[in-house]
Amino acid sequence: MNVPRRVALVEVGPRDGLQNEAVVVATADKIAFVDKLSAAGHRTIEVSAFVRPDRVPRMADAADVFAGIARRPGTRYTALVPNLAGLTRAIEAKVDEIAIFAAASETFSKRNINQSIAESLETYRGVTQRAKELGLPVRAYVSTAFGCPFEGRIAPDAVADVSGALIEMGAYQVAVSDTIGIAHPGQVPTVVTAVTKRVPLDRIALHFHDTRGTALANVLAALDIGVATFDASAGGLGGCPFAPGATGNLATEDLLYMLDGLGIETGVDLDAVLAASRFMESKVGHRLASRYAAAKRVPGP
Amino acid sequence: MNVPRRVALVEVGPRDGLQNEAVVVATADKIAFVDKLSAAGHRTIEVSAFVRPDRVPRMADAADVFAGIARRPGTRYTALVPNLAGLTRAIEAKVDEIAIFAAASETFSKRNINQSIAESLETYRGVTQRAKELGLPVRAYVSTAFGCPFEGRIAPDAVADVSGALIEMGAYQVAVSDTIGIAHPGQVPTVVTAVTKRVPLDRIALHFHDTRGTALANVLAALDIGVATFDASAGGLGGCPFAPGATGNLATEDLLYMLDGLGIETGVDLDAVLAASRFMESKVGHRLASRYAAAKRVPGP
Repeated sequence: MNVPRRVALVEVGPRDGLQNEAVVVATADKIAFVDKLSAAGHRTIEVSAFVRPDRVPRMADAADVFAGIARRPGTRYTALVPNLAGLTRAIEAKVDEIAIFAAASETFSKRNINQSIAESLETYRGVTQRAKELGLPVRAYVSTAFGCPFEGRIAPDAVADVSGALIEMGAYQVAVSDTIGIAHPGQVPTVVTAVTKRVPLDRIALHFHDTRGTALANVLAALDIGVATFDASAGGLGGCPFAPGATGNLATEDLLYMLDGLGIETGVDLDAVLAASRFMESKVGHRLASRYAAAKRVPGP
Repeated sequence: MNVPRRVALVEVGPRDGLQNEAVVVATADKIAFVDKLSAAGHRTIEVSAFVRPDRVPRMADAADVFAGIARRPGTRYTALVPNLAGLTRAIEAKVDEIAIFAAASETFSKRNINQSIAESLETYRGVTQRAKELGLPVRAYVSTAFGCPFEGRIAPDAVADVSGALIEMGAYQVAVSDTIGIAHPGQVPTVVTAVTKRVPLDRIALHFHDTRGTALANVLAALDIGVATFDASAGGLGGCPFAPGATGNLATEDLLYMLDGLGIETGVDLDAVLAASRFMESKVGHRLASRYAAAKRVPGP
């Protein structure tokens, strides 16, 4: 098995994690969480989302979180941005980078953001154009890339088409995302290879959820074909394992335990991430989904 | 990535699973569980253990379970046997195969079975000799092969030595076991390669626990080097994910979801295993640890 020597992590806990928790976390606690994550060595942290506060109340304090964090040199603080209005707010908040999100499934796109894929790409073209003028890097998610809750299987070429469009309009990287945690390692090379027809391999990131326990195996399959950027959520925030419907972000700790074991450099300290997660655990009111965190509760090596 | 076309599963839920559950399950329910697992297509099921009832009360009904199950043609019903006394009981119960268990860690061996590794091998030599005379196949576990709760890291050569000794005395297969769920995919080729110095690859099975979420990634790394036999526990029985100290057997469903996705034949039906686990879930009084089972609770593809 062939793995890269170094892997880049994108920490999505403060956004993808906290947005999907039942409990609303106080702004000050979000700020402290982000600061603990940057202190752990994270170089990219998705801090919040500049979305409509009436639609996503958990992210309504995005500007305040950005105003409160201690900017660590070398760390990029990013935010999800759905449109030009969001971009304006993100710029005011001095984000280092924005993230846009399209779907590979037409039905999911309509249900999630009330736009067809083509309409969403048109919106993002405007956002990306404006971001480019300001020198702001743009990252793009492609959701439901491994399966859709409404359509089931998604053709890898459809994933490639949306990914290609996002890169062509100016995104520097596309995060091919398993929104419902249905991916298995047999699919990973198929989907990634399809996307490489439109996007160079070194601009492909993968975003797995551990809903069916396959996330680390998927990462391993992806490492084997040279993918070297992965998203993860501290503690596995965003999916409570005890609740039905938990979506289960891959926990940063679980990913780091495996990458450390493989001798892959990340620059991120596992124990420091766990400390950040433990802090947030007391705020969200349930045990962390991270298996590594659970194993650490008991004495042992 | 290179994977075998066909993989053999060893279902350990009724023994390794139920032995480590807090609740004592009624004999009739164990029998029904084993019958559901054989109906799912399992060809090897570890049914119980012929150990001292005062030491392991959960396995005290081993003979009754063997007397009650419907023997499905093509399925081997096996039992753990620690010594000649256990072997005598196992023979009376008409087991198809026995399993013996040594440790790779000296400290673990002393604490777990109150014998040094050498002493335990001496005991097993007698057991294996007698089994051979009766034409009874012997499978051997090597516990703590990837790490020990007392000694920490275990030298791969120590794992190879114990494995080699067990094969040389007559075991047909050695199940190299990650007793505390600490293995990561970086370790798997190292340990397996060491063991192949003493044991042919096709006589090596792997037994993972999912304590740190790495079990499926470990299986994938093992498939890549040609290992084609894996142990798993229906529903992940044997480790409640909500309890501190959960050891977390790899769930058969999670393993099957990945193997099915990789197009690997097992002969075992995922939905039928899940049905067996759901039956047992109502008896052990907590939700199954299997991630696949948890994902199936919610509507979706």
